[in-house]
Amino acid sequence: MATLVLLRHGESEWNAKGLFTGWVDVTLSPAGEQEARRGGRLLVESGVLPDVLHTSVLSRAIQTAELALGAADLRWLPVSRSWRLNERHYGALQGKNKAQTREEFGDEQFTLWRRSYDVPPPPLPDDDEFSQAGDRRYATLPPELLPRTECLKDVVQRMLPYWYDRVVPDLAAGRTTLVVAHGNSLRALVKHLDGVGDEAIAKLNIPTGIPLRYELDDEFRPVKPGGEYLDPEAAKAAIEAVANQGR
Amino acid sequence: MATLVLLRHGESEWNAKGLFTGWVDVTLSPAGEQEARRGGRLLVESGVLPDVLHTSVLSRAIQTAELALGAADLRWLPVSRSWRLNERHYGALQGKNKAQTREEFGDEQFTLWRRSYDVPPPPLPDDDEFSQAGDRRYATLPPELLPRTECLKDVVQRMLPYWYDRVVPDLAAGRTTLVVAHGNSLRALVKHLDGVGDEAIAKLNIPTGIPLRYELDDEFRPVKPGGEYLDPEAAKAAIEAVANQGR
Repeated sequence: MATLVLLRHGESEWNAKGLFTGWVDVTLSPAGEQEARRGGRLLVESGVLPDVLHTSVLSRAIQTAELALGAADLRWLPVSRSWRLNERHYGALQGKNKAQTREEFGDEQFTLWRRSYDVPPPPLPDDDEFSQAGDRRYATLPPELLPRTECLKDVVQRMLPYWYDRVVPDLAAGRTTLVVAHGNSLRALVKHLDGVGDEAIAKLNIPTGIPLRYELDDEFRPVKPGGEYLDPEAAKAAIEAVANQGR
Repeated sequence: MATLVLLRHGESEWNAKGLFTGWVDVTLSPAGEQEARRGGRLLVESGVLPDVLHTSVLSRAIQTAELALGAADLRWLPVSRSWRLNERHYGALQGKNKAQTREEFGDEQFTLWRRSYDVPPPPLPDDDEFSQAGDRRYATLPPELLPRTECLKDVVQRMLPYWYDRVVPDLAAGRTTLVVAHGNSLRALVKHLDGVGDEAIAKLNIPTGIPLRYELDDEFRPVKPGGEYLDPEAAKAAIEAVANQGR
């Protein structure tokens, strides 16, 4: 049995402004920093002390990990970072206002881009101000690997090699493993772990800043489907708030 | 040719109080946090952008790296941490006030412990409140490897395997490599790089918070002995201030 802990980064400066972010490298808002510290305190209070950390290469996830582990007095953890844990690339929507996009393209198209499993938004041109082409942190990715847009299915496919090659070996070695990442890269991982269907995943939301613990069996599958949030009340309230959005 | 950048952590809470720290895991003071951010800005202003980071497992070095790389928008760098980059273990002096120690043991003994190359202070018992025996981060070190006290010679010996096995391969691959560590682990590294003698090293001080750049040749030796501080004026003033202490 191995313990896996997932943590979604807290509010970023662009979440607060209602902009599609994706791979644009924005930092946490002050509220997001507080969420991260609280996530770290929840680890300590629950006695869930990670041995190793994995993050994306985006600042908001890295900051969340730094602040959470600072609050838990665990800054020294070994850490690996990968673009494979990045948020979904939002294509041409990156940098756009969510409300304006909904108005411009209509409810149906908007919901399709946001929640369908396999329909990506239009690709983002490399010369767009919100493109990551030319970003030093992706310099070792050949051009065919650097996304210009992604649907959730794409995220599952590029995330899984990291799960199998880098995270599972830590779990197999008995290490309590913390993954700090994003709404969609964590949904992709949960989809895989819990075997969620392509349609059901549209309705699955992971709240920010609340560690989600999975005990995994010898085949690296959850003993209890869905895992357990370290603050179940707060998680329930956050999930209901999202479900009620726009009603 | 490869570029190596050394950065000594800024003022910690115990530096500010005049206590021997060693392996005790104290955090940065507000002044130390400012030094770290300034170190990061110096990297950007000098156009020295690291590709990879190495730190000790002590919080004050990790915080320094986090703040410096945050200020340089380089949080995403791959990072390795090792106890081999830790500060010198100060033995029974850990947690003791420097002025009181000087009074209790006399100037000669005090200077011998602080600056001799091969005379360690008395060992720290494992049941001392400032011992690291039982600290989770050293759980994979067999007891004969966990120091109870160290002289600078000991630090050189336990630091060099990390230099050869983990840092040199990054340099060999052409990566600009940042090492964020401590007064004595960096003195140990500079002693090796510049071939400083066992006596001369006593007088070599590395200022806090100012990146020190070395261009290394194909044998991983400095092209220019002593390297170059990214803010030479500030480094000179800091080194002179230390030399004048207690005059």
